[in-house]
This record gives sequence, C-alpha cells and structure tokens, in this order.
Amino acid sequence: MEVGDATFPRGFWAYAWEGGPRLRMALLVSDRPATVAGRFTVNAAQAAPVQLCRRLVAGGVSQAAVINAGNANALTGAQGRADAERMQQLCGQALGIEPATVAVASTGVIGVPLPMAEIEAGIHYLAERYQMGAPSEGEKAARAILTTDTRPKTGALTVSLSGGTVRIGYMAKGSGMIHPGMATMLVFLTTDAAVAPAVLDRLVGEAVDASFHALSVDGDMSTNDTVLCWANGASGVVVEQAEDVQAFGAALTRLAQVAARQIAADGEGATHLITARVRGAQTVADARQKARAIIASALVKTAVYGRDPNWGRVLAAVGASGLPWDPARASLWMNGLCLYNQGVPLPFDEAEAKARMAAFEVVFEVALGEGEAEAEAWGCDLTEGYVDINAHYRT
Amino acid sequence: MEVGDATFPRGFWAYAWEGGPRLRMALLVSDRPATVAGRFTVNAAQAAPVQLCRRLVAGGVSQAAVINAGNANALTGAQGRADAERMQQLCGQALGIEPATVAVASTGVIGVPLPMAEIEAGIHYLAERYQMGAPSEGEKAARAILTTDTRPKTGALTVSLSGGTVRIGYMAKGSGMIHPGMATMLVFLTTDAAVAPAVLDRLVGEAVDASFHALSVDGDMSTNDTVLCWANGASGVVVEQAEDVQAFGAALTRLAQVAARQIAADGEGATHLITARVRGAQTVADARQKARAIIASALVKTAVYGRDPNWGRVLAAVGASGLPWDPARASLWMNGLCLYNQGVPLPFDEAEAKARMAAFEVVFEVALGEGEAEAEAWGCDLTEGYVDINAHYRT
Repeated sequence: MEVGDATFPRGFWAYAWEGGPRLRMALLVSDRPATVAGRFTVNAAQAAPVQLCRRLVAGGVSQAAVINAGNANALTGAQGRADAERMQQLCGQALGIEPATVAVASTGVIGVPLPMAEIEAGIHYLAERYQMGAPSEGEKAARAILTTDTRPKTGALTVSLSGGTVRIGYMAKGSGMIHPGMATMLVFLTTDAAVAPAVLDRLVGEAVDASFHALSVDGDMSTNDTVLCWANGASGVVVEQAEDVQAFGAALTRLAQVAARQIAADGEGATHLITARVRGAQTVADARQKARAIIASALVKTAVYGRDPNWGRVLAAVGASGLPWDPARASLWMNGLCLYNQGVPLPFDEAEAKARMAAFEVVFEVALGEGEAEAEAWGCDLTEGYVDINAHYRT
Repeated sequence: MEVGDATFPRGFWAYAWEGGPRLRMALLVSDRPATVAGRFTVNAAQAAPVQLCRRLVAGGVSQAAVINAGNANALTGAQGRADAERMQQLCGQALGIEPATVAVASTGVIGVPLPMAEIEAGIHYLAERYQMGAPSEGEKAARAILTTDTRPKTGALTVSLSGGTVRIGYMAKGSGMIHPGMATMLVFLTTDAAVAPAVLDRLVGEAVDASFHALSVDGDMSTNDTVLCWANGASGVVVEQAEDVQAFGAALTRLAQVAARQIAADGEGATHLITARVRGAQTVADARQKARAIIASALVKTAVYGRDPNWGRVLAAVGASGLPWDPARASLWMNGLCLYNQGVPLPFDEAEAKARMAAFEVVFEVALGEGEAEAEAWGCDLTEGYVDINAHYRT
C-alpha cells in the first residue's frame, strides 16, 4: 500500500469546491481519454446520474467525473435527468473535452431538485482550476464528496508488471445506505495502466464482487451507488498478458477490499468494524452469502456494540442466510477464541471474551466443514449514534 | 373482535408457572385431542423444539403445548434434542395423554442447555393445576411466554357458520428477531371448530402468509419461530362446506393480522407502529414484497422515529425490494398526505407532515399504478431503545 489517492496514478488530477450553501463538489480529470468500466446500484429506483453513467460505461471511454455531495438527484423525475445531463454538458464544455465522456455522480438527500445555480458555479470554478494548472487536490476532493462520513477514504498501490510499474488509486465515500448490491457508496478508482475495455470490465466486476458486494452498514440499498474505474494508460504499460492481467486484477481487488473495509469502519455511528470470515464452504458464493448474513444482522451488530459474546446470534444469522447449512458440522471463533466446536457450544471465560471484543475490529470466523472455499464480508456495529444520525438529521 | 385469549374457544385451558430463576413456563391444553397445523422458521438452524413440532404437525394431532421463555434450546446439539423430547415426554405423562401429541416451544437465549430441573418442576406444577381443575389462566399464560415484550398479546373472535358459532383465540409473543420467514415469534391459535387436517393446514398457511410473513421488527430471523393452530371441535360445528371454509379462513387470517400488528407495535424499543400498504400491483406477492421492503428499511424506521417526513427513503426501499418497479408511475401518501404523485415530488408543509407523524401508527401507502393487487406489512421504528436492549442485555 502507498500513501495516495485517486491522483496517485499518473495523469489524474482532482479539485474540490466547497463554496455552496447546499452542495460540495469535486472534479476528477485525466489528461487524456481513458478506458472506463463501472458497476452500479441494483435498486429499481436508479438516480439520474446513475442512468447517465450506465450509458457512459457502455461507451467505454471517459476523461472526467463531476461529483456533488448534498443532493442525490434521485427520484427527481424528468427534471433530474435533464439536470444530470446539464452537469455533464457544462463540465465537458468548461474542460474543452467531449461532454459525452464526463461521468456524473451525486449523493445526499433524495427527492429534491438539484440547485443548478450552485452546480454551475462549482463546475466553472473546478474546470478553471484544472485549466490554470493549479496543484492537484486529491485529498481535498476526497473530503468534498463525503456526506455523514467522518473521514475521507483514499488509498493507492503500485503493481509491478512485465512491462513496468503501474499505479492504482481511489477516493470513496460511504457511511449510510450501505448494503450488498452496493450503497450510497461512491468509489472512483484510477490507474495509469492501459487496459482494454472488456478486460477492465471483467476485473472491475470481480473486484466489486469481492469487496463492495460484501459490505453492509445498514441493509439499505441506495439509489445512487456507483463504482467507476478509469485506466488512462499514462504509464505506457499495457495490461495484456495473462500473468499481467491476473496480477493487476488481484491488486485491483485488494485495493477495493481496503476501500470496503474503510467504508465499513466509518459506517454511521460505528464504534467497531465487524469482519465475518466464512471458510470450509463448498463455493465462494455460499461462503460470501453466509458472511454477508452475519454482518447484516441487527442482533449481531448490537451485540458487538455491547461487547456481548452472544455467539448464538452469529450462528442464527448464518442459518437465516437462505442457504442450506448444517450447524452440527460448524465451528465459530470470535477474535481467535473458539466458542462453538463442530456443533457443540464450548464453555468460555466471559471476561476474556468481553476483553477480546474491546478491539476495534471484531472478527467472527465460521468454519463450515463442508469444503475448501472461503469469503469475507465487512460491516459495523449498530449504535445509538446510527439511530441519532438517521432519526434526527435529514440525509 | 372479542376480549379473550387462547382459552376463549371451548375446551382449551392454560396455566402459567413463574417459579424458576431462569425460566417461565406455560401449558396450553385441550380437553380432547385436536387437529393441529403449523408453520415454522425457515432458518437453517432450527431449534430442537421446532424440529419436534414439525414431526408433531406431520402427524396432524395434538392435545397440549408446553412452552418456556428464557432459553431457546437452539444450537444446543444432540443434548438439546434430547431435552426437547424429555419435555414432551414429561408433559404427556403428567397429563396422562399420549406424549407424542404434546407440542414444545422455547424462546430466549441461544446456545445454552435448558435447565432441566426447572423444566421438570414447572411441568409437574402446570399439569397438576390442570388435573385439579384449577381456574384457567389464559392471560397469565400469555404473560409467562414473553421475553423482552412489554405486554401480553392475545385476541379472540367469534365466527358464525352454517352449523353454528365457533370461536378462535390466540396468545403470542414477539419483540425481537422478527422478520419475514418469521421470528422468535411464538403464536398459539386455538379454535373449537372441527376442521380436517388438510383444510386447517391450508388455512393456517394462508393466514401466516398474510400476517406473520408480512412482519419485521429487526430483519433477524429466529431459530425458534413457531405458529401452531389447534382445532378441537368442542363447538360441535364442522368447517366443511365451501362458504364455511372461506368464512373461517378469513376470520383466522384477520385474527393473525391483529396478532402481527400487536407484535409489530411492541417491537423492541418501538415508539411507532409502521404500516406499509402497497396497492395497484400486478400480484399480491409483488405488493407484499414491496411492503415488506418498506417496513424492513433501517432508514425508514429511523426516519419514523425522528418524525422526519423523508419520503425518499420509503421509495428507495421499494426500489431495493429486488423486483422491477417504475417510480414514474408511483404515488405515495404518509398518513393520508400525498408526497409524491405519479413520479413527481409534491411540495408539502413540513410542519403538517411532522404533526401527522406524531400518531402512534404511521401508514405509508404506495400506489404502483400497475394493477389491482394489494398487500400490507407491519413493522416498528428503530430507536435508541432497540440498540440499548440488544447491546446491553443478553437475550
């Protein structure tokens, strides 16, 4: 891992605008057109910017993204679609690039029209910063896209391939409405590798399955979830040979998992990161669904918050995953302490169990005893803080 | 509706035992063998008493139920199965009836062996009360089966059929781990009608689909959910003719819906009952799944708690139900106030909307504009109280 963000790969620039009373905005731009791939919410109510990005990704080429926080432009009907297109148009014109290559992402309150005067002011400011060659503001841009998040989410790494070294970076926001099938979770991955559209699409899909689809904060699925990944080729290194594709894909997945863990750890009101690791499954899909069931359980989440080693809730959640399961063959560890061994509850020291739960990360590891496959999922505890944020503030 | 409980139908008796430090118990007994039908949790980790009741229901005949609160006898392995069978055996012997006709239900902490000495003491006390002809204690029995519930849940009604009048009653417990697919929800329905096993099974299935399967408190599905319905024929009225079957089935469904609403209204930490009514759907299943998505959403539940008319969360939940949906044709009302009309957000008076949310019951009504089918689902708000109960008390 490197210290860096979406501007760590060569040729990417980012800027932030915090001048609006109701909005904050960010611009991410590549100095050349890039291959783009993406994954989006499966919510039937897809926000206008998501509909726009689906078309963009189908084209396979993008050079910039304009992002706003404060308003999701979701459930806003025909007006919302026109507003998203206008954001794209204004941004392309201001940057002097083909507007159809500009991605648009929004997060915030649902069902309220975008304040377009603010949007226009922000776009003009951001494009001008880029065009005047102002220093890139990757970290500030990562802050501008947050909503109820408490800290920015960025990461970067370097991968050595046969043709040389390439870089991958990201900025993301999460916090609430986070659930498999994604969330109001916006993730912008960048790389200076050159990757063919079909290859990038496949690798992004694999990375998302192993990361953001194994993430739940509150079980709610947003109208606006967006993961986009740009590969602009600025490194001069082409990802083409089988070993390179595999190494690059593995790095992309690893970075996406880092982002997913960051998002889980900063879930609304969270005081603990919860990791569920299910192994000994017959298939990865089975392991993942059971791991997801654990981290999505309100009773597991409240038990972790209360540091209560109430392991029955963990196994009850596995049982409720909707898949066949034989509790008599299963074992369970909580932060390394075995609580249930091949169908038999083990006596344990309550004080020691509680002490282990004082760690920020609580890991539940379930061995199914059925096969060799495994998967992880990430979530956070459910606290009075979550209720307070969502009951008393309009998000 | 009548004032009454599971002993309102003729020939049913109930008793309570509150003498155990770790358990409370109840006995429900019919003065003659009854036809029995049931529905159970679909959790893959089925508690020992659930496994026992499945076999009982397959036999179609039952005369009594012994119920304990405080320990779920779930994830307790071979010991748990032996303990459940011993409960059945002891109860049958003490009552002088065929042990195989005794149902067993347990609710409480998971993964801890049943304190069998207490169970034995309770069973002997309860059976003796019945055999000495002590006055029936329907309401007290309904209290004995509670866990974190704040009030007993009972109801009764009378149905006029071609052959005379029959009675239906119930006692139930709910509170947490409540989700479609059922919950640690125990429901004991009784009737003095005579109903053939196959007919009773079908009517109970229909009633459960329209009631307990449309109920969610916290999205967690219990290992112990049990709905049992006994028909002992003590009224001398046989439910056989088509009109009688229909009238009796409708009454059973209505009573089950009353019980489901009681359970939702007394969900852990609840300050509001949430009703989601989805109409204008192409099928009842579609309407029900969308209604369930609304009442299961943590963001809807916290918004109701905060009396925040954040209707976007309601429609986002509909979109996340996993079924196709066109927001452009939909409309939404909240306690009678239209907020979204055929795809267009309506301006509304925030103060008036908040005032309408001060009611204990908050009804979200969604018209899909696609057909004629409709369904309801019930839940409750998500409060600091829920977090407190589940973080800080072992349940």
